[in-house]
Amino acid sequence: MMTRREAGLGLLSAASLVAGGVLAAAAAAPIDLPKPTLSSKPLAEALRDRRSIREFADRPLPLPLLSGLLWSAFGINRPRSGDRTAPSWRHAIETEVYLALPDGVWRYDPGGHRLMPHLALDMRAQTGTQDFVGRAPLDLVYVADGIRMGNVAAEEKRLYAFADTGFVGQNVYLFCAAEGLATVFRGSVDRDALGRSLQLPAEHFVTFAQTVGFPKG
Amino acid sequence: MMTRREAGLGLLSAASLVAGGVLAAAAAAPIDLPKPTLSSKPLAEALRDRRSIREFADRPLPLPLLSGLLWSAFGINRPRSGDRTAPSWRHAIETEVYLALPDGVWRYDPGGHRLMPHLALDMRAQTGTQDFVGRAPLDLVYVADGIRMGNVAAEEKRLYAFADTGFVGQNVYLFCAAEGLATVFRGSVDRDALGRSLQLPAEHFVTFAQTVGFPKG
Repeated sequence: MMTRREAGLGLLSAASLVAGGVLAAAAAAPIDLPKPTLSSKPLAEALRDRRSIREFADRPLPLPLLSGLLWSAFGINRPRSGDRTAPSWRHAIETEVYLALPDGVWRYDPGGHRLMPHLALDMRAQTGTQDFVGRAPLDLVYVADGIRMGNVAAEEKRLYAFADTGFVGQNVYLFCAAEGLATVFRGSVDRDALGRSLQLPAEHFVTFAQTVGFPKG
Repeated sequence: MMTRREAGLGLLSAASLVAGGVLAAAAAAPIDLPKPTLSSKPLAEALRDRRSIREFADRPLPLPLLSGLLWSAFGINRPRSGDRTAPSWRHAIETEVYLALPDGVWRYDPGGHRLMPHLALDMRAQTGTQDFVGRAPLDLVYVADGIRMGNVAAEEKRLYAFADTGFVGQNVYLFCAAEGLATVFRGSVDRDALGRSLQLPAEHFVTFAQTVGFPKG
């Protein structure tokens, strides 16, 4: 349950997110995302336009776009079962989508279709090695929950979590292609350092990152 | 260059493919796929309808659907650069899409948008462990060309090839969702045995398989 004070912080936080403000995410309440509304762009056009773009405008992503992006990425597409827009190895559903935004790090909660505050730090620059990652408005960080993957070797978890991240990353690519956004999926990440900085729960590990924003110019 | 005799075999082969015939793929010429034409289904609907289906009708896939499927999976979406509908690690473009069909094994050639004959054997049952794989009309087998991935450790190649296969597999999921086809991406594959049976070139290795067909009933 949310107190009135928390709800107020949540609203403030949502506003600051849109404005690219600096409200501390850790002190904030969850942000309810608006119902995802996607364009009517055909899949065929999204496939045709899919590509990697590495130059981003500073402009932050409005909440409605963020909502569609996260639902497309790994949202719930079958409310009764809780199943998702992307498959996962042995139905482990181990992928968590974190968002490194200027005002902090948030975690996407697909069940509530909302953002959960995680850390009140601008960690964008730590999500990769290229210059643009620290300036782009959003870096997604994909994290796998190894516990949900059961009792198999760490190396096997890594392999299948990598494949599962590919499904999610392709959804993001196609959403961005359909909505005129720029994105690039990135494997060049110091996974261990980023995982420590993100203060991930036990047996969670970073797989990939993906920058999203408006194209430059 | 194709001789008239080879061209004749190709036509025969294309006909037998559609009819689920048994013409030996190894003796056959390449099959030119028709220009891919996809439905106008919005990306949003494909994401909403994406799911794994494990029950397939026996009915073979007509060539026009096969054409759209393969182009969506990992076809060329930017003819000038040869770039693809899915990204790849360090732009290695290491993923090859093989097709296990009743009349043999074929390899998708994105440059020519055609099927290259590979082996004149029905290898569908060897592409997985579940009963349906041997009866469904098509099992895609994803293979990574380790040479194109350069001079990195085998384990690293495996990791990134797995992720890259995820991108391609998600394209297949969304194409199938848009076209009313059934599909399931499969990690339960005896990769080494299948690679040997497929007589893959040196340093090529199987990553995943994915069954595609019309839904049962």
